[in-house]
Amino acid sequence: MKVMIDLCVVPLGVSVSVSPKIAECEKIIRSSGLKHQLHPYGTVIEGEWDAVFAVVKQCHEIVHEAGAPRITTTIKCGTRIDRDQTMEDKVKSVEEKLN
Amino acid sequence: MKVMIDLCVVPLGVSVSVSPKIAECEKIIRSSGLKHQLHPYGTVIEGEWDAVFAVVKQCHEIVHEAGAPRITTTIKCGTRIDRDQTMEDKVKSVEEKLN
Amino acid sequence: MKVMIDLCVVPLGVSVSVSPKIAECEKIIRSSGLKHQLHPYGTVIEGEWDAVFAVVKQCHEIVHEAGAPRITTTIKCGTRIDRDQTMEDKVKSVEEKLN
Amino acid sequence: MKVMIDLCVVPLGVSVSVSPKIAECEKIIRSSGLKHQLHPYGTVIEGEWDAVFAVVKQCHEIVHEAGAPRITTTIKCGTRIDRDQTMEDKVKSVEEKLN
Repeated sequence: MKVMIDLCVVPLGVSVSVSPKIAECEKIIRSSGLKHQLHPYGTVIEGEWDAVFAVVKQCHEIVHEAGAPRITTTIKCGTRIDRDQTMEDKVKSVEEKLN
Repeated sequence: MKVMIDLCVVPLGVSVSVSPKIAECEKIIRSSGLKHQLHPYGTVIEGEWDAVFAVVKQCHEIVHEAGAPRITTTIKCGTRIDRDQTMEDKVKSVEEKLN
Repeated sequence: MKVMIDLCVVPLGVSVSVSPKIAECEKIIRSSGLKHQLHPYGTVIEGEWDAVFAVVKQCHEIVHEAGAPRITTTIKCGTRIDRDQTMEDKVKSVEEKLN
Repeated sequence: MKVMIDLCVVPLGVSVSVSPKIAECEKIIRSSGLKHQLHPYGTVIEGEWDAVFAVVKQCHEIVHEAGAPRITTTIKCGTRIDRDQTMEDKVKSVEEKLN
């Protein structure tokens, strides 16, 4: 089952600047080989369900190891079985209707 | 790693009434043996990471089998390594400060 | 337009324990007169759109005043125009299908 | 109070293809004059709190007018009072730590 998620990992109990820990997550995402796109409020990741959620778990593990005692993450998670749809397809589909 | 999630599964491309498919998810959650609490905009589930996310995957599978071509799910997902905290603890912790 | 939201306010750059600030939000929600239900990963609030989102804004204001330099909030937000549905209706609708 | 949100509007009880209704939302966002960025699982919008949430409400109104009886929306919503931070700043801050 293919899945597309929008992942936003938020470390708690640490400094107000969370970007060093988000960068640790980005390294995991990039080394996973999964298709991904960083945006200002999260990262969209696309791939097989188990591979994608393995990355989510690794992000929690690395952020705890980097010193965050607590994490709250928000995930939007989409699956569809009627047809394949990539992250580029989704954006293009909206933009075509705007023109 | 223990995790607490708030799970909200939304079937798309089906009837405006989604409760039959949410009930299918509830059956999976209840048969998992994991601690859980249904509320008006989701279900809170608590347990070991892999067991909890196995339930999330099974919910997507059952809702597709039940006829939904597409699903979008929102998950809030919390872990902490400083101490154990159950779902009852979290509510009690807020309520104590209100009294 | 009636709306039901699930609100989860997360103060950043403060202590790992966020319940004192969540309790401040709960006070605002309770004094608003809106129907609400606290659960382990948020609070469900029901009412007219403008009244509900005024409460969300007040929660951000009070949590900043209480010392949090940064806040990230997750909101699920539902509207429907086909019929009225309360938070009790939503839970009952699922539970009836489980019996 | 400045706010940055990640907005994901999901029409229910309609066709499996939601992009025509998302395009209606995009038109509202673009005509608002607010800074915004479409990504594969939502749109990030930045501006003064009241202006941003007025857009969210208009999106619900237009999607109902376009025929959706029901909508569920997920919003991530961030405010900070320690300093200004644009959507470009947030991405740059992560990318700098990756290099």
